[in-house]
Amino acid sequence: MSWWQREDLRYLGGELTLAGESLAAVAEQSGTPTFVYSAGRVLDKLAGLQAALDARALPCQVFYALKANRHPELLAALRNSGRCGIDVCSPRELLLALEAGFAEAEITYTGTAISAADWEVICRHPGSYLNCDSLSGIRQLGERSPGREIGLRINPQLTASHLEKISYAGEKASKFGIYPDRFAEALALAAHYDMPVTTLHFHSGSGYLDGELEDFGEILARLSGFIDQAGSIRHIDIGGGLGVPLREGEAPLNLERWATMLAGFLLPRGLTLQLEPGDYLVKDAGLLLLEVCAVEEKGGTEFVFVNGGFNLSNLYAYYGYPTVVAPLAEPGEEMPRRVSVAGNINEGIDLLAEDILLPPLAEGDVLAFLNVGGYSASSSSDHCMRGEYREVVIPSA
Amino acid sequence: MSWWQREDLRYLGGELTLAGESLAAVAEQSGTPTFVYSAGRVLDKLAGLQAALDARALPCQVFYALKANRHPELLAALRNSGRCGIDVCSPRELLLALEAGFAEAEITYTGTAISAADWEVICRHPGSYLNCDSLSGIRQLGERSPGREIGLRINPQLTASHLEKISYAGEKASKFGIYPDRFAEALALAAHYDMPVTTLHFHSGSGYLDGELEDFGEILARLSGFIDQAGSIRHIDIGGGLGVPLREGEAPLNLERWATMLAGFLLPRGLTLQLEPGDYLVKDAGLLLLEVCAVEEKGGTEFVFVNGGFNLSNLYAYYGYPTVVAPLAEPGEEMPRRVSVAGNINEGIDLLAEDILLPPLAEGDVLAFLNVGGYSASSSSDHCMRGEYREVVIPSA
Repeated sequence: MSWWQREDLRYLGGELTLAGESLAAVAEQSGTPTFVYSAGRVLDKLAGLQAALDARALPCQVFYALKANRHPELLAALRNSGRCGIDVCSPRELLLALEAGFAEAEITYTGTAISAADWEVICRHPGSYLNCDSLSGIRQLGERSPGREIGLRINPQLTASHLEKISYAGEKASKFGIYPDRFAEALALAAHYDMPVTTLHFHSGSGYLDGELEDFGEILARLSGFIDQAGSIRHIDIGGGLGVPLREGEAPLNLERWATMLAGFLLPRGLTLQLEPGDYLVKDAGLLLLEVCAVEEKGGTEFVFVNGGFNLSNLYAYYGYPTVVAPLAEPGEEMPRRVSVAGNINEGIDLLAEDILLPPLAEGDVLAFLNVGGYSASSSSDHCMRGEYREVVIPSA
Repeated sequence: MSWWQREDLRYLGGELTLAGESLAAVAEQSGTPTFVYSAGRVLDKLAGLQAALDARALPCQVFYALKANRHPELLAALRNSGRCGIDVCSPRELLLALEAGFAEAEITYTGTAISAADWEVICRHPGSYLNCDSLSGIRQLGERSPGREIGLRINPQLTASHLEKISYAGEKASKFGIYPDRFAEALALAAHYDMPVTTLHFHSGSGYLDGELEDFGEILARLSGFIDQAGSIRHIDIGGGLGVPLREGEAPLNLERWATMLAGFLLPRGLTLQLEPGDYLVKDAGLLLLEVCAVEEKGGTEFVFVNGGFNLSNLYAYYGYPTVVAPLAEPGEEMPRRVSVAGNINEGIDLLAEDILLPPLAEGDVLAFLNVGGYSASSSSDHCMRGEYREVVIPSA
């Protein structure tokens, strides 16, 4: 059995199913390209996070990072669960969150490069909570809304990331967060505008798994100095970045160990936890169905051409995320072929997978590209006018 | 004077102008983010190409590569010039070209990964000319429209590219074109469906300048064998890939030398030239206006934050294209600052330029990002819901 199969994503009677639904039936009905999401999986992931934190008696608030996937039915499912608020990073995201029924008090805004026009929208919704990621942000907010309670996003100068290309806070100067050398200045600025600093926010990387927990722990340890210096911190917001296994053999994030680590740091200090999982909740809840247009050997490589490209999901082409490609019909005894999967965009880098094993395929076969529930539809483009797709949400049971 | 200034893009009376229009006035009227295009520049580039080819008495047809920029006013300007047809790569591009007033006979379709649904649209427009880039494509077309005249896109296994990341036909097997080892098979397949092969098509790379012309010449030399083998070739379609200088000191493509090279190869053989310039025509005719949100030092780097990101133009973040950033007010005597320019998208790689010199800037200043007329708006995304922008076309005089 393939390593990625699980209770709600597996072959049943020879057919690939997500949340009990036959994906062949979805493809038949909706055509391709189609993104398919399981709302149940999203809610299960959320419940799992909270169970782990509850088991440590760690008070916490979860804010779903809207940017990962903004499908209205997923937003509705999250909101109706009553288990989370929402994190936004732009004025239109803020308005969408409100439209989806989240109250201002359930919204955190963690943005970067906030323009004058952005501030206008933000300041019309004073009930939301702002994490300022720069001194300019503190000043710009202070000039408009003095006295408002804020969080400060700091840059811990360390990354816990499983993927080399995605580094938010490593050695090269990052655009994100306030560096230690300017933290005192940031606090003074907040004080100048009578803005109590109640949250310390950081983002540690992207896709951290069990193997990166030690780095994560070291980042936590670095917070002590900031907390002492600020003197007013009540919440630690650890941002997002929780990873999902993408390759065979990768150990999933051990939530118990993770929660124990957090509880060990926060409980003695009387701090509550905030977190902004986005990709972690939706990534392995979503897949993309594409049709095989052709199979052809070129220059010694067997290419499987499909009717979608890196404009729909750039995770492989631009970020090198390994992609799991699953045929809708369970592979049988036939000898698998070593292939690369190419999209329909006129750029050489438009590949969805390289050098993977797939059973022999024919034109018209449909393939499922797994782990594209986040940062795919939400950041897709109409490059080559190939940006049309459908989205199907399987409701939770 | 900055190296990139030219007759129609320069400071006049201290203000940056494109095609005689003050960009500050455009920003004032349209706000930011706004793409500004000069239709005149696009037509001038087209006229320049044709003049160079006419001077060598080389019969040619130009097909503008729609995917670079599909703004309706630019398409109208190109169409009304009567100087070019149009090249498309997807069914929706084909339909848009027809809508823009191009006749089927003025359209080439050079696509990849053509699905059954795509073929339906393509076959409804039999007057357009198809360049097949695979054996599967020949067969799929032959089954539906036997007897149709076609071109074959071959893979010359050599790239003339100025930019390392963009390689279409190098050593690693590419998804594009028919490789030499399967060319005989391709011809037999075309013959089987009574499809005369009248064009030999190739794409040599992206952004070739004068320094790459030698490579380009070598690619041309490789065509001889294919032409002889086919026996029916009347046109050579050299695709796109013509470059525009992006850095100080880069020698622009010498069109005379380029045309002489092409004429030397094609005229003795009685062949006509086809070409599909896209980026070459629009790249330096377009710029993006963004507003400075903040200027702040972080981790030893001075960042200029702007109200747009790599979702609007990913040329720097993903492809490493050097970006020219020009303040709208002519820099004066003040000592320039060494800065990086960061966008408003929540990804660490969302940078528009790094380590460049700019005069001291203030919040609210507007900057022009040059050379983004191609593959920017046309492949932009709504990542972080930051994908809204305006487009202004300055009509040709």
